[in-house]
Amino acid sequence: MESVKLFGTWFSPYSRRVEMALKLKGVEYEYIEEDLKNKSPDLLKYNPVHKKVPLLIHNGKPISESLVILEYIDETWPGPAILPSDPYERSMARFWAKFLDEKCWPAMRRACLSRGDQEQEKANEEANEVVMFLENEVKGNKLFCGDTIGLVDIAANLIAHWYGIFEEFYGNMQPPLNLITKDKFPNICEWVDEYTNCTFVKENLPEKDKLAQLYMARIQAAKAAAQ
Amino acid sequence: MESVKLFGTWFSPYSRRVEMALKLKGVEYEYIEEDLKNKSPDLLKYNPVHKKVPLLIHNGKPISESLVILEYIDETWPGPAILPSDPYERSMARFWAKFLDEKCWPAMRRACLSRGDQEQEKANEEANEVVMFLENEVKGNKLFCGDTIGLVDIAANLIAHWYGIFEEFYGNMQPPLNLITKDKFPNICEWVDEYTNCTFVKENLPEKDKLAQLYMARIQAAKAAAQ
Repeated sequence: MESVKLFGTWFSPYSRRVEMALKLKGVEYEYIEEDLKNKSPDLLKYNPVHKKVPLLIHNGKPISESLVILEYIDETWPGPAILPSDPYERSMARFWAKFLDEKCWPAMRRACLSRGDQEQEKANEEANEVVMFLENEVKGNKLFCGDTIGLVDIAANLIAHWYGIFEEFYGNMQPPLNLITKDKFPNICEWVDEYTNCTFVKENLPEKDKLAQLYMARIQAAKAAAQ
Repeated sequence: MESVKLFGTWFSPYSRRVEMALKLKGVEYEYIEEDLKNKSPDLLKYNPVHKKVPLLIHNGKPISESLVILEYIDETWPGPAILPSDPYERSMARFWAKFLDEKCWPAMRRACLSRGDQEQEKANEEANEVVMFLENEVKGNKLFCGDTIGLVDIAANLIAHWYGIFEEFYGNMQPPLNLITKDKFPNICEWVDEYTNCTFVKENLPEKDKLAQLYMARIQAAKAAAQ
């Protein structure tokens, strides 16, 4: 009998990507919620390199790194395709997913976390420049890679859902950061609206209130530790 | 008629990966050497996001990011497979290639560039820990992913060929760094020997002397600028 286990945390966009892909394919799986402050022996054993979620174990074989897992899921189970079939379109999907993780999110995160006028201005400028590439990419596409949910849409969950709350708590500065606005990035805003209102997507995102409570608790813990 | 253009620089391990893959597949291509101090309008036009080599243009369509390009090449042209056919083996190849670029090389680089006893010791320790994952992975494999040159071997060119020269110039400290030694990492050393002595691989690596001259010139330029 097939065994599919996913080790994740409810608040991780990377875990949620894998859940979304498994559900898209209709794969039944056992979900194990990890306590990242007290990682399970299985997580440490099966992902010794990164010691991180998500970790997928399929018939005893472990795979980590969310984008690697997404491709594995697409190649292993039938159902709606996560990557396009055309090699060039596939390469573009891989390119943009990589861009989101390696360039876009880090720049957006820096814009929220940087302090001091000069550093903040520089980080903000860089984030705007990077996000503009997404703005141009999403233009005219109903979703990033076509009419159905694909690799880039799944990977962009952290921009669409997590970023707003992250900015609310960590980018809380004067004047407010407001990185993603309708006047600057209308296409992204439209995509975020459509994406987060899609019933299937919505079911696979954590509640905003719960995420907000998590960030709030983290900020308070950091403040208490600094005192 | 098919048109394949590669924008690269002779000293970039990332460009060399693409060259190696194209040659492995027997694809004829036009190579354009980029001057990174004076980037060509084509590079800036076709890779606006990263403005970096390698950039492959196939029948007018641009692709960047070496690992993305390698998968594209594998999916587009017949010839020896770059990725294994089994989905799990494919995911492992992707995992280790990503590991090399995102974890292994940065740790090895930091070990060379960090200064000051404490910082240096920490960076050295981290690099040893990370490289040990490779040591265990390469154990028993003639090449990383089997008996033929595959994605991980191609991606590992920077560890096998570039790192030694990089350490010689940038990790020149007392006591010497000597990160990769036969007593600590016998499997890696054996793999490096075999890999860099393979005729096909050798033809696709820059000469060590030329690389050494490049690093030397860069170090001298940095010193002159700091004076």
